[in-house]
Amino acid sequence: MSSQNPVFIPGPTNIPDELRRAIDLPTMDHRSSAFADMLHPALAGIKRVVKLRDGEAIIFPATGTGAWEAAVTNLLSPGDTVLAARHGMFSHRWIDLCRRQGFNVEVIETEWGLGAPAEALGAALSADKAHKIRAVLVTHNETATGVRSDVASVRKALDAAGHPALLLVDGVSSIASMDFRMDEWGVDAAITGSQKGFMLPAGLSIVALSRKAIAAMATSTSPRCFFDFKDMLKSNASGGFPYTPPVSLIAGLAHSIRMLEGEGLENVFARHYRIAEGVRRATRAWGLALCAKSPELYSDTVSAIVVPANVDSTRIVTHAAEKYQVAFSVGLGEVAGKVFRIGHLGSMSDVMALSGIATAEMAMVDLGLPIELGSGVAAAQEFYRTSTSNRQTRAA
Amino acid sequence: MSSQNPVFIPGPTNIPDELRRAIDLPTMDHRSSAFADMLHPALAGIKRVVKLRDGEAIIFPATGTGAWEAAVTNLLSPGDTVLAARHGMFSHRWIDLCRRQGFNVEVIETEWGLGAPAEALGAALSADKAHKIRAVLVTHNETATGVRSDVASVRKALDAAGHPALLLVDGVSSIASMDFRMDEWGVDAAITGSQKGFMLPAGLSIVALSRKAIAAMATSTSPRCFFDFKDMLKSNASGGFPYTPPVSLIAGLAHSIRMLEGEGLENVFARHYRIAEGVRRATRAWGLALCAKSPELYSDTVSAIVVPANVDSTRIVTHAAEKYQVAFSVGLGEVAGKVFRIGHLGSMSDVMALSGIATAEMAMVDLGLPIELGSGVAAAQEFYRTSTSNRQTRAA
Amino acid sequence: MSSQNPVFIPGPTNIPDELRRAIDLPTMDHRSSAFADMLHPALAGIKRVVKLRDGEAIIFPATGTGAWEAAVTNLLSPGDTVLAARHGMFSHRWIDLCRRQGFNVEVIETEWGLGAPAEALGAALSADKAHKIRAVLVTHNETATGVRSDVASVRKALDAAGHPALLLVDGVSSIASMDFRMDEWGVDAAITGSQKGFMLPAGLSIVALSRKAIAAMATSTSPRCFFDFKDMLKSNASGGFPYTPPVSLIAGLAHSIRMLEGEGLENVFARHYRIAEGVRRATRAWGLALCAKSPELYSDTVSAIVVPANVDSTRIVTHAAEKYQVAFSVGLGEVAGKVFRIGHLGSMSDVMALSGIATAEMAMVDLGLPIELGSGVAAAQEFYRTSTSNRQTRAA
Amino acid sequence: MSSQNPVFIPGPTNIPDELRRAIDLPTMDHRSSAFADMLHPALAGIKRVVKLRDGEAIIFPATGTGAWEAAVTNLLSPGDTVLAARHGMFSHRWIDLCRRQGFNVEVIETEWGLGAPAEALGAALSADKAHKIRAVLVTHNETATGVRSDVASVRKALDAAGHPALLLVDGVSSIASMDFRMDEWGVDAAITGSQKGFMLPAGLSIVALSRKAIAAMATSTSPRCFFDFKDMLKSNASGGFPYTPPVSLIAGLAHSIRMLEGEGLENVFARHYRIAEGVRRATRAWGLALCAKSPELYSDTVSAIVVPANVDSTRIVTHAAEKYQVAFSVGLGEVAGKVFRIGHLGSMSDVMALSGIATAEMAMVDLGLPIELGSGVAAAQEFYRTSTSNRQTRAA
Repeated sequence: MSSQNPVFIPGPTNIPDELRRAIDLPTMDHRSSAFADMLHPALAGIKRVVKLRDGEAIIFPATGTGAWEAAVTNLLSPGDTVLAARHGMFSHRWIDLCRRQGFNVEVIETEWGLGAPAEALGAALSADKAHKIRAVLVTHNETATGVRSDVASVRKALDAAGHPALLLVDGVSSIASMDFRMDEWGVDAAITGSQKGFMLPAGLSIVALSRKAIAAMATSTSPRCFFDFKDMLKSNASGGFPYTPPVSLIAGLAHSIRMLEGEGLENVFARHYRIAEGVRRATRAWGLALCAKSPELYSDTVSAIVVPANVDSTRIVTHAAEKYQVAFSVGLGEVAGKVFRIGHLGSMSDVMALSGIATAEMAMVDLGLPIELGSGVAAAQEFYRTSTSNRQTRAA
Repeated sequence: MSSQNPVFIPGPTNIPDELRRAIDLPTMDHRSSAFADMLHPALAGIKRVVKLRDGEAIIFPATGTGAWEAAVTNLLSPGDTVLAARHGMFSHRWIDLCRRQGFNVEVIETEWGLGAPAEALGAALSADKAHKIRAVLVTHNETATGVRSDVASVRKALDAAGHPALLLVDGVSSIASMDFRMDEWGVDAAITGSQKGFMLPAGLSIVALSRKAIAAMATSTSPRCFFDFKDMLKSNASGGFPYTPPVSLIAGLAHSIRMLEGEGLENVFARHYRIAEGVRRATRAWGLALCAKSPELYSDTVSAIVVPANVDSTRIVTHAAEKYQVAFSVGLGEVAGKVFRIGHLGSMSDVMALSGIATAEMAMVDLGLPIELGSGVAAAQEFYRTSTSNRQTRAA
Repeated sequence: MSSQNPVFIPGPTNIPDELRRAIDLPTMDHRSSAFADMLHPALAGIKRVVKLRDGEAIIFPATGTGAWEAAVTNLLSPGDTVLAARHGMFSHRWIDLCRRQGFNVEVIETEWGLGAPAEALGAALSADKAHKIRAVLVTHNETATGVRSDVASVRKALDAAGHPALLLVDGVSSIASMDFRMDEWGVDAAITGSQKGFMLPAGLSIVALSRKAIAAMATSTSPRCFFDFKDMLKSNASGGFPYTPPVSLIAGLAHSIRMLEGEGLENVFARHYRIAEGVRRATRAWGLALCAKSPELYSDTVSAIVVPANVDSTRIVTHAAEKYQVAFSVGLGEVAGKVFRIGHLGSMSDVMALSGIATAEMAMVDLGLPIELGSGVAAAQEFYRTSTSNRQTRAA
Repeated sequence: MSSQNPVFIPGPTNIPDELRRAIDLPTMDHRSSAFADMLHPALAGIKRVVKLRDGEAIIFPATGTGAWEAAVTNLLSPGDTVLAARHGMFSHRWIDLCRRQGFNVEVIETEWGLGAPAEALGAALSADKAHKIRAVLVTHNETATGVRSDVASVRKALDAAGHPALLLVDGVSSIASMDFRMDEWGVDAAITGSQKGFMLPAGLSIVALSRKAIAAMATSTSPRCFFDFKDMLKSNASGGFPYTPPVSLIAGLAHSIRMLEGEGLENVFARHYRIAEGVRRATRAWGLALCAKSPELYSDTVSAIVVPANVDSTRIVTHAAEKYQVAFSVGLGEVAGKVFRIGHLGSMSDVMALSGIATAEMAMVDLGLPIELGSGVAAAQEFYRTSTSNRQTRAA
């Protein structure tokens, strides 16, 4: 696989050249004040990105999965009940993780292609008169199906039920690419990693906590040490870390946030929408449909495209990789073989997106799908050239 | 201008990631044997790339222009006559340089869009019974018009006239991207720089000399010091340099040659042909013509595309840069405003080329040209997907 | 803090330029076969470095602390008893971690400056007729005191007692810098991170497991998901990872092992000994003593130097950082204020070490310690110039 | 030669990490306005560094030698007479270059170890009633002997003689490390390169011209094209370049000037003095002398140290490189075998300098010189610790 072409996987994303340089650092003493000068802006920046005024941001060396685990083990105790919908591979995995960590998960099975079912979640919450449910888990952007859930509606369901459960949201593939409003939506823990909207290599877990979540930490009895948020908050306060921090990624995170804010967060979101909408128009021009069942569910970071029933979608991905050196993503779990995915988040421009669309077209034609070459490209071009928002991550 | 999108200028080219790393070096002592270990393979590699068995390769810190100047001042003496055709901006500039250096240039004016006129050059050589003409200058690839000249036919003209003039060839935008046969064509000096087929930053002049050229150095009386080939050959022989060498670029050149030979030189040429042919098919699909007058003249490194008479081609370039952050090149000299150029040399893949074609399409439609979106892309896609040569610079 | 001077902290170490380049990578698809081609050599290389023929190597995104936690939670069950000596901050922290994870730790308090007490451990094991002790924890190199423990003697104590407990060894600051013989010493889990002997940034946990340890995983009931070795071994077998892997660090680890083996592992160990011995001779020339009580305990990666009773050792570290831009390390825990530490592991040469010794000298003289300038340097110089092993990490 | 240790050659210097990153750039379109935005600050910055208010700065891809050649061929005409002193290898080479370029050089032979002889130059100027001498060449810092010439005194000699000759000064190894006052000294052309005080790789010639020099360009008849300043000034004015510019080095130059001005130019000079004085005190402690005959001649960028008559100084350099992987420089020309040189310019700290001094000591002792280990280090340490100026290139 050559590194000449962009990748079109839903993370890790393409890394901007400027960020590559920002993380190419010599060793520094992480117990020096220079480290604090790097850490504190990174933490403050996370809060701005997720729109959290109060509360705390936390980072540590792991991945999104580690961030999931840390969030539940810091906020819940063994035997606690959590409520979650399963509607894709990543919501499934979080449920599995909770069970392995000793939590009792009440699962609402939901069709893959739909979002978190606010109504059904609300019903379950209303039925829970004893308030046994301690937390509701929502996957904001289901990377497997390209579906965005309506977190605000889940909050409304919680409020309507008068239920005190914590609201924990997986924003791994949405935060910093799609709007995320922690305060407005009443999210108690927002979870992501460095390698998606922040455009960095994998290796840094990112969690933002509301004051309510921080209070919940005090009563949690789950065993934890490496993932202990109390240790982290205490160390961070004095500019330190409970163990050796991944300095380069933290420097990179601070720089990434400067880039995102240099472009303007709302511009970043608008750019992701525009690029995604081009991919969706290409999909329609090919005569294909998205896995996401309706427009309000469309993800702006990844599109899962349903292939004709007689085609194995995995072959498209393999073929594009082998013949054209371009990485798309396969379908996972229930939609394995049925969809292929185009990731279009992070460091992505219209021009890059067009090369991905053109490649998908060639791959599908090579494999005999009844697609007209140039058709998807033309649909995306028309949208891109007539929409007006910012075309690049930064006018650097 | 963002660095997210590839550049489509005819050099400096996109730099492969691997070469970026190869030139990111700390300071070394250039008087140590480690430098010789880096220099000698680079020089030997140049000879393989230009297909020169005997003779010498020379490198020094300057550009293609410096290489032109060094070649003529080392091989010719003030007042010497040289014969050259003018058929584009770069052949023009070489003529100008020769005149400013005190040479007498016999110019054969040739239509821009045609190559070096072997017949006319032969006639001039035949007419020169006194052998006043000391050198014939040929621009192998006229970057301004996207025209490849037939060097072999100029050699035949020299031979047919029984003329002893040196044959000096500007291969700045062809060498390492298009086939160049120094021995077979009887070329005495081949000239290029680091920033084209070798995919490096600008800053290194590259010259290859035949034995006949080396002999001519002995009698040249042109004043020279920084550009003196004798000093260089003498220093190089013992692993040194007459002044401080640009170590990183020399290391990069050695690495670049390893990459080119890893892909296979003939595969490199085939890839450039394939990518260029896709651009040409796109051009035809747009209903436009190339500046190059006939297929045997088509350059595989740059295409100069003639726009309709009522359009200023410079606007296409400016518009693409401003709106889409993509760099194409304007027309120069006689073809200013009439052509725009797409560079497609060096580190370039089908997928990258498609993004350039798609962008040119959008820019032309934006400016009102009667182009159908997707039409050029589709023509290129069809060619790319059905041709079979290597799609990347290296399976790294 | 400038990046001009080397750091002299016991990790993260100085990163060789070559490794800096090796980890400066664009995004690749971690589900492609190219990733497997990078992962498998890294895993195989770890086994060679720790001298483990059978068994498995495991890597995941975290730090040494995460590796500790993963080792105990994968091999032990809540309520299990482990035996450990406390003789420094890092042995203390591992004990603390075990307690927080629900294990019962039998602690043998040992003077800071001594190693793991094989005799006392043996006595405890012999007394444990019921074999309640499931694991013995040994800190091979106590980074806080600069003490190397004799792991082989602990193994002998286990064998003498006929005790089946697992032997878990923290080699965070020894592995890849000092000899580590997993098979010969009968170590069941060896634990380290990327940022010490492997000379990389922090962010990668490294664990090597014996077959006995792998068998123990089957019965462990500790809740775990992110740290689950079974998931990792299963994914790794097919070239994958249970979650997004830190690709750059894995590529860097493979490259680091190539560098270490290029130098020769035994040469690496000899170099660390030579450099450390120079620091020790300097210490003696200053009239100071090491925290480590006797020569067989001396660490070759970090020296903890005891300052006169009327001096606060922290001031030396702060002063050197502020005035000379050189990072040493403070004393921790029981030896806070009493020792300062010079790290001399990883990418370190005699010449670099001399600059650290010279700086420590200046700092101590500045603060009024009765040290003769140049005295420590001269002692180290004499040793360095008359010892013959390799002076650099690699003849690159 | 490992890249772990600093180099101690008088250029190319060690490159600060921050500058390494600043020049690690992807390709940009050098005809875009972004290039002008990079070029103009670099040119303006050069003028501040050489303390030139009026006049112009010029940069082009070559080296210091190219800058010499460009300066004389742009300002003088074939057959013109220039006056120069020969007192080291670099003053010798400039004389040689002038002769090869067709100028008549009146040479004042001066002992190696002395500076430009203002009195003798003044006498020659006074004797030149016809004002045949068109330019006086001065080597501000003779890199071969570590001698700084008093440019102001040469200006006084010119003024005293009422002579209109241009004053051309080689500041290759002084500018940006030692004070250079172009306006105050009445210098007409100041010459340097990227790889010395500017701490960049070699490859960029740097020239600053007074208004008088610019006027002289108009009458020069020396053939020139690549080196033509008129072409450059014209192109630069509109943000362009007469040929492909070395974009990365220009970006690096702009960044370097920001670093130098961030530290403060006077602080940079004070730091170079302090580091050099430490080397000189070490030399005295070794019982050795400098090649420079008296203190006012001492260079702050390079020290040439005279070895005992029975020692071949080249062996010290070779031995240090082979055994300790440290690069010093040999003696050149008249002082070959008699001196070795320690370069201490550019990116250099006290701590780095101490490692060089310590290494020189070991190498000399290894070769049997009657030097006491630690003696030179102690002398330098005492000076470094008691002097107070800035110890690093930048508090980055």
